[in-house]
Amino acid sequence: MTKIVDRPEDFAATALAGFCAAHADRVIPVPHGALRAYAGAPGKVALVVGGGSGHYPAFLGYVGPGLADGAVAGDVFASPSTSAVAGVARAADLGGGVILGFGNYAGDVLNFGAAAERLRAEGIDARILAVTDDVASAPATDAARRRGVAGDLLVFKIAGAAAEAGLDLDAVMDLAGRANARTVSFGLAFDGCTLPGQAAPLFTVPEGQVALGLGIHGEPGIAEQAILPAADLARMLLEPLLAERPQGHDGRVAVVLNGLGRTKYEELFVLWHHLTGLMTDAGLTVIDPEVGEFVTSLDMEGCSLSILWLDDALADLWCAPADAPAFRKGTVAAQGARQVAREGAAIAAVPRGEPASAAQAGCVADIVARLAQALAEAEAELGRIDAIAGDGDHGQGMARGSAAAAAAARDAAAQGAGAGTVLSLAGDAWADRAGGTSGALWGVALRAWGQALGDTDVPDAARVAAGARAGIDAVTRLGGARPGDKTLVDAFAPFVDTLQGQVAQGAALADAWDAAARAATAAADATADLTPRLGRARPLAERSIGHPDAGAISLALCARIVAGALAR
Amino acid sequence: MTKIVDRPEDFAATALAGFCAAHADRVIPVPHGALRAYAGAPGKVALVVGGGSGHYPAFLGYVGPGLADGAVAGDVFASPSTSAVAGVARAADLGGGVILGFGNYAGDVLNFGAAAERLRAEGIDARILAVTDDVASAPATDAARRRGVAGDLLVFKIAGAAAEAGLDLDAVMDLAGRANARTVSFGLAFDGCTLPGQAAPLFTVPEGQVALGLGIHGEPGIAEQAILPAADLARMLLEPLLAERPQGHDGRVAVVLNGLGRTKYEELFVLWHHLTGLMTDAGLTVIDPEVGEFVTSLDMEGCSLSILWLDDALADLWCAPADAPAFRKGTVAAQGARQVAREGAAIAAVPRGEPASAAQAGCVADIVARLAQALAEAEAELGRIDAIAGDGDHGQGMARGSAAAAAAARDAAAQGAGAGTVLSLAGDAWADRAGGTSGALWGVALRAWGQALGDTDVPDAARVAAGARAGIDAVTRLGGARPGDKTLVDAFAPFVDTLQGQVAQGAALADAWDAAARAATAAADATADLTPRLGRARPLAERSIGHPDAGAISLALCARIVAGALAR
Repeated sequence: MTKIVDRPEDFAATALAGFCAAHADRVIPVPHGALRAYAGAPGKVALVVGGGSGHYPAFLGYVGPGLADGAVAGDVFASPSTSAVAGVARAADLGGGVILGFGNYAGDVLNFGAAAERLRAEGIDARILAVTDDVASAPATDAARRRGVAGDLLVFKIAGAAAEAGLDLDAVMDLAGRANARTVSFGLAFDGCTLPGQAAPLFTVPEGQVALGLGIHGEPGIAEQAILPAADLARMLLEPLLAERPQGHDGRVAVVLNGLGRTKYEELFVLWHHLTGLMTDAGLTVIDPEVGEFVTSLDMEGCSLSILWLDDALADLWCAPADAPAFRKGTVAAQGARQVAREGAAIAAVPRGEPASAAQAGCVADIVARLAQALAEAEAELGRIDAIAGDGDHGQGMARGSAAAAAAARDAAAQGAGAGTVLSLAGDAWADRAGGTSGALWGVALRAWGQALGDTDVPDAARVAAGARAGIDAVTRLGGARPGDKTLVDAFAPFVDTLQGQVAQGAALADAWDAAARAATAAADATADLTPRLGRARPLAERSIGHPDAGAISLALCARIVAGALAR
Repeated sequence: MTKIVDRPEDFAATALAGFCAAHADRVIPVPHGALRAYAGAPGKVALVVGGGSGHYPAFLGYVGPGLADGAVAGDVFASPSTSAVAGVARAADLGGGVILGFGNYAGDVLNFGAAAERLRAEGIDARILAVTDDVASAPATDAARRRGVAGDLLVFKIAGAAAEAGLDLDAVMDLAGRANARTVSFGLAFDGCTLPGQAAPLFTVPEGQVALGLGIHGEPGIAEQAILPAADLARMLLEPLLAERPQGHDGRVAVVLNGLGRTKYEELFVLWHHLTGLMTDAGLTVIDPEVGEFVTSLDMEGCSLSILWLDDALADLWCAPADAPAFRKGTVAAQGARQVAREGAAIAAVPRGEPASAAQAGCVADIVARLAQALAEAEAELGRIDAIAGDGDHGQGMARGSAAAAAAARDAAAQGAGAGTVLSLAGDAWADRAGGTSGALWGVALRAWGQALGDTDVPDAARVAAGARAGIDAVTRLGGARPGDKTLVDAFAPFVDTLQGQVAQGAALADAWDAAARAATAAADATADLTPRLGRARPLAERSIGHPDAGAISLALCARIVAGALAR
């Protein structure tokens, strides 16, 4: 378990600081991450990788020539925030565009995706690269849903080498995408891991058993069975990957045998001894294998095997030199001048809006303030509802996020921003302070909505409704949820449909909004299979109420608060 | 615990094979170890490091330019045999002499020491370098008794860099000795480790406690207390080292923060963050720190901090480039042709003795055969005695070793070897097959004895007695034990004293030997605080009999068997 810790909430940040100090010859610190100490060539595509902490060498250990330009580190097993990703990416940008690489998990998809949208809005061509290598997490026919595990290293290495070779953003993305499509991983676990500050493990595997396909955060695997000798474990690791050999492939592979933390080097070498024989028997030619720890999971016990089915171009890129704290290949030529730490998180000045729009900014800020007040009052209730099926922090996140949004909106309005900018900045602040999936979704929704409103004139009802549509589009584009998935979309979608429908039929905004808020509330109630609802004190947590979606409930609550504000 | 294993007795050898396969770009396999894939310059001093397996990256991970020329790997937590060390060293030799580097543990001291003697007898100038950095294991006033832990890396790095720079053997040894004298380490452990094939850990630390100074094989530490926050742990690691700062030292230090296995990278980075502040406050200037896993102990949970107090020469050597599977610094220039695996374990042809000596060879071989028969019969009894204070394998080791010695002696005699060579080769075979400390000691004793007998004439009683003296001298020189330490020396010393005394007074060899055997038996009995002794069946293991020394008992038994043979 994790024993060396001060305040658990500081663990990831302290580890980041210690990493930067230990590897000061190779990296420099930036807020929430690290950059190469010696920047790549101007105009080069920059590769920024990241995800939750607790997986070192992923992702900080990959920063160096031939691999990543920067890495962003979230809290332990938690996605970095949108603004953290965007900040590191801004600092890493060399003018050639930025690729944001991460393993395919909901929180990362959302925050890296939202960061890419923010960066593009600022004029930085940013693309996302979600690694989907874990064959245990979804069938090959649904590969885009697969989780990212140690295949991260293989895919990032291809992207990093292609960027280092001077290819342009489209070409690097093309090669990285090809590498991802050809990278497969399968893992075994003997036991779970313990989060900093926790006394009990996050999850466990029964003593004497091996779990096949268990995720690195304890996501469900596909089977459990008694532990077998190493030779059999090697076969169990390899077979699911051989099953996905591309048709007609010549057998050249890059291979990573990855320890998850507690499994030791010698155990990996024992496995590797057996794997070499099995791979030879299968007609594979292993090129530059890597055996060690590359994507860990704190002190989790187990390992994974990753294969990248090479072609000529991918083989050249895999073998290209690289030199990062936790990964090297060949010899990297001497480098130029050391860069000084750049301020990645500098906030651009708030742009002033046209007078007509700026005159509405106070109204927008007022509405956000009402939301913050209502969510503060509902914090405990939302927490209780979330605790039934989630981790119970929804109320806290919403209260914190909306309070930050209210403050940001007030400040922006005071500085003369237009209505659209006020709403967008409120969204950014909401995402950055709320944390979690809901916070990020509220952030992208409000940002998109604000951009639709614009900063030039007084938006009419149709523009407001179109903004709502832009908001839910951003949520579903970045979050991937659809109606019926029991997320806030279940309330947001009927809200938007009703709002746009009523406005199209000529209703006034306040009336249309009121109808939309009622639709959202009804949908939220249905989602939670529950009629008594917010505002009526009842001990919900003690009841079995299906899968109550706190996100849908809080969205409906907000819709009603705004309806009340508009009605006056 | 260790979960990836086939037959536990094959674990270390399979891991070695897997390591060589995984790092085929950097190393080539030799029996019981690995060499650099690209050999150093002819005439360069060769550094061969090693010890038990289970400590990776120690020692195989250190093989590469700027560091070690070769590494030899014993079984898990067990010294490699004398012949394994000598074999790898022979293969690594470049003509400039060989330094055998290891951590200061009894078995390693013995086997690396005995290997150095064998190599010198073959004309290879071999020196031993025992690292003694663990301040918890003995006071500074008795530093030569300290154990070797992660300071291994610091001392080997200095030696390897000095050898790479082309310094001669004396100069490299001088710098390495200086580095060792200035290297100090202190460790913390939260929990023990589990040997391959075992269900229970080798040792444990109580839940919630941290053990200070606990050895990497569970050797006793100096204190236990409740786990503290990381900032306090950092202080606890550093303070014992600061206490040994050389007088007037300018504060330049090479530092290694080493994870023992289960403690994760991020935890080490958290510690490092605190350590950097503490070291700065203490006036230290840290040069090229290393934070990671360098000397592990399977899945042991904990870490150690090592400091090398630098001077100009040592700082240059610490910063010199190196490139090994698990350690690199700077950039190592392109290398020459890849070497092919050399046969390190080739056995030299048995030299023919002069006729007079060769005529005695059969007699020597016959005596060794009688010893083997007697030890086979006593195997269970010796095992029972050993189990009271040891691990119970003494009888097995003695039976296996003596059987191999008898076969080697018979073969050598059949090939016309002289009496001395027959006895020496019997000793080598005994050491290599018996394993353990006793086996190695019997090996060096018989080898020294045989060399004293020579291969030219019939040795007289005085020469036989002088051989016995040479034997015990070799045992105490390499093993370090003195009479009263409750080892085989307790029986061997009175045996030799009596034999030489009686012979000096003119006694016939058989009579002198009989008296010496009786003296050895009496001493062995006294050592074990026990009168009823060998040959009388009694359930010894069930009785509380102080610290019975199985080694002294078996030596006395052997002395009596030979006395019986000589009497006929």
